[in-house]
Amino acid sequence: MNLDPADQQLALELDRAHVFHSWSAQATLKPMVIAGGLGSTVWDFEGNEFLDFSSQLVNTNIGHQHPAVVAAIKEQADVLTTVAPAHANLTRGKAAQRILARAGNTFSKVFFTNGGADANENAIRMARLYTGRDKVLSHYRSYHGNTGAAIVATGDWRRVPNEYARGHVHFFGPFAYRSEFWSASVEEESARALHHLRRVIQAEGPTSIAAILIETIPGTAGVLVPPPGYLAGVRALADEYGIVLIFDEVMAGFGRTGSWFAFQALAEQEGGLVEPDLISFAKGVNSGYVPAGGVIISPAIADIFDDNVFPGGLTYSGHPLAMASIVGTLDAMEDEGIVDNAAHIGRDLLEPGLAALAAKYPIIGEVRGVGVFWALDLVSDPETRAPLSAGGVGALKAALLARGLLPFTADNRLHVVPPCVVTDAEVERALAIYDEAFGAVGDVD
Amino acid sequence: MNLDPADQQLALELDRAHVFHSWSAQATLKPMVIAGGLGSTVWDFEGNEFLDFSSQLVNTNIGHQHPAVVAAIKEQADVLTTVAPAHANLTRGKAAQRILARAGNTFSKVFFTNGGADANENAIRMARLYTGRDKVLSHYRSYHGNTGAAIVATGDWRRVPNEYARGHVHFFGPFAYRSEFWSASVEEESARALHHLRRVIQAEGPTSIAAILIETIPGTAGVLVPPPGYLAGVRALADEYGIVLIFDEVMAGFGRTGSWFAFQALAEQEGGLVEPDLISFAKGVNSGYVPAGGVIISPAIADIFDDNVFPGGLTYSGHPLAMASIVGTLDAMEDEGIVDNAAHIGRDLLEPGLAALAAKYPIIGEVRGVGVFWALDLVSDPETRAPLSAGGVGALKAALLARGLLPFTADNRLHVVPPCVVTDAEVERALAIYDEAFGAVGDVD
Repeated sequence: MNLDPADQQLALELDRAHVFHSWSAQATLKPMVIAGGLGSTVWDFEGNEFLDFSSQLVNTNIGHQHPAVVAAIKEQADVLTTVAPAHANLTRGKAAQRILARAGNTFSKVFFTNGGADANENAIRMARLYTGRDKVLSHYRSYHGNTGAAIVATGDWRRVPNEYARGHVHFFGPFAYRSEFWSASVEEESARALHHLRRVIQAEGPTSIAAILIETIPGTAGVLVPPPGYLAGVRALADEYGIVLIFDEVMAGFGRTGSWFAFQALAEQEGGLVEPDLISFAKGVNSGYVPAGGVIISPAIADIFDDNVFPGGLTYSGHPLAMASIVGTLDAMEDEGIVDNAAHIGRDLLEPGLAALAAKYPIIGEVRGVGVFWALDLVSDPETRAPLSAGGVGALKAALLARGLLPFTADNRLHVVPPCVVTDAEVERALAIYDEAFGAVGDVD
Repeated sequence: MNLDPADQQLALELDRAHVFHSWSAQATLKPMVIAGGLGSTVWDFEGNEFLDFSSQLVNTNIGHQHPAVVAAIKEQADVLTTVAPAHANLTRGKAAQRILARAGNTFSKVFFTNGGADANENAIRMARLYTGRDKVLSHYRSYHGNTGAAIVATGDWRRVPNEYARGHVHFFGPFAYRSEFWSASVEEESARALHHLRRVIQAEGPTSIAAILIETIPGTAGVLVPPPGYLAGVRALADEYGIVLIFDEVMAGFGRTGSWFAFQALAEQEGGLVEPDLISFAKGVNSGYVPAGGVIISPAIADIFDDNVFPGGLTYSGHPLAMASIVGTLDAMEDEGIVDNAAHIGRDLLEPGLAALAAKYPIIGEVRGVGVFWALDLVSDPETRAPLSAGGVGALKAALLARGLLPFTADNRLHVVPPCVVTDAEVERALAIYDEAFGAVGDVD
């Protein structure tokens, strides 16, 4: 890496002068400069290195700058970067084939988009046209994207200033540690959450509901692994009322859980594979090396658009450069056993390692997760489970950065979300840094 | 180019088996296979070449596979493909700087998105938050993207099956050849369209209106270059009623008109530069080599988000690989005089050449355009101006393809939209092909 320290200041100056940032008040931003990366590490122009346990926005599942994916991008760049979606492109066909093979043979087609938001937009569109119904039910604790329908399907605070679409209804999902249902156990949480969903469906009017759209494992909301039986119960409710079930696997998909898809990772606890009718994806499909997302479509839904025009589309649907990065990523992940590595890291290192931290620091109220997809729910009081203050989270974040770890925090949580390629040694180092940082900040609040 | 003819069939098979296409009934599709391209030419795996006078979806302004842009992509691919938007990235700052320099110094910041749809989504979001108002006014003859708010802002048929957002109102824009205002002249069309817009504003309630969102030159709707005075009049109405003016330059921007932006190309006819408060862009900014779009923001609007959180964002906002392709594209367009070439082609070849065709073939009812952005309005009867039938357009399209030209058709129109890098010789060849094709199909209907 050829780094010029002068570029550190230039990057900051240009950013502050000209770049408008997401989800922020602009004046208060002090962005970290990232000049390059490799695997689980990123660095700035001054040569400072950080262990990336954020995977940026939980998207670099294959790590930074995987050579096979970089090579696939460069090879396609030499042939054809872009083509209109109406034309056929060989790389696009290969990408779709690989995605369908990993989703299981019950799905039939892939519609490509630019990212997760427009994946959900188009999944919603398909569900509405398939059912002839209007409403979309989704969790309050959710994020589904920033565009018109996706942001109103979103349940968290980001929806509230953007609520300009109709037909979106929100309900509470299961979250045993912070139950909305006065549950005394995980089993009760699952049963009561399903009862609540049934009552919402009945109260909204089942024949008005096109889709139930849920993150298989709600991600930014706190890695809320659903309690056993919940997904199977939602599937049964969708079937009972003729509602399309959409799993948003934008964050959870493509290796993050130690399986290709989260619904596959949860098959054992559900007593069998619970499959949705549509899957939205982005991020991990190509680790975001080129913007891409899409919808995996069941035959029943794909078939109705054989003779009816699908009224959705976009210029970069099935973009060759993006498709090449998908082919390169999925082949490398399979060839190198990267999904298995994520499962191993979760089972053998993160689960016991994070449990040990929780046993040591009362500030850690709960540890949840699977694969390389974990959250520590931080509390100021383990008894009341009162969330840790923003100041407390900020102090922890600063302590981690000072020790060379780039963390992912959300609300009162620390998410532990390294790339799927993370090594045992890197996880051991990260666990030591977490330990030090928790020790340094103490029971801050 | 190393082409394997066997890949022609494989590309088609994989496409028909696994790929779900935009804006189409899937069973009837017979997509053309595109294997590669260079400049204004594309080819399939069997070595058949086509002169690309579609620019795909009117996006490859710099032509296919421009070596400087390919090199910029490959160079960035070796350093850092992706980074979270919260971090600062030098390439992103350079891209924003270059875009602002071309838009004029009255704009202050750029918010990056994945394409044109989410550019419009975020421009609408900014306007609503800036004004504290709800409604968005846009033309019936328009297309603004496929996501929740963008598709409902869209005026054409693609809105109708997707109308799930509130606060969107549509009005008729000027179109002298097919006037909605019983106008007898272009001047009258402009004045009456402005009167109509004023009446819609008054009838909707001015204090309920956040934004007027218009394509500076409506593109897919038919390259509807506004009559003199219209843009200035819309700007005056927006100012009078405190409404944010958004110019959608997704298709018209970055060289297509022979200027960097369409509002600059129209300055002379408007008696001075008419600037919007927000500009949405995509396509030409990097010719779609990597999916990217964004919003160019005036200081007044950018400033309110200094201390207020902007509630919008996306994982790939300011994506380094996309940013590198923007820097490479804008530098090459400037260094090589590509925007000037588009102006020359329009002024010296397409305007006289298409006028000559119109004089020869009564099927061409009107020729409209500027730069490399033209439409031929095809009619079955020059007197009544009855639009040419779909069958007639299909016959023309087939005649053009058979002669080695990839055309862009929409409704009853042939759009003449080559890359900005098209050469004089290529335009002469295309004009000869158009001439032959019109001669072959005759006055089909």
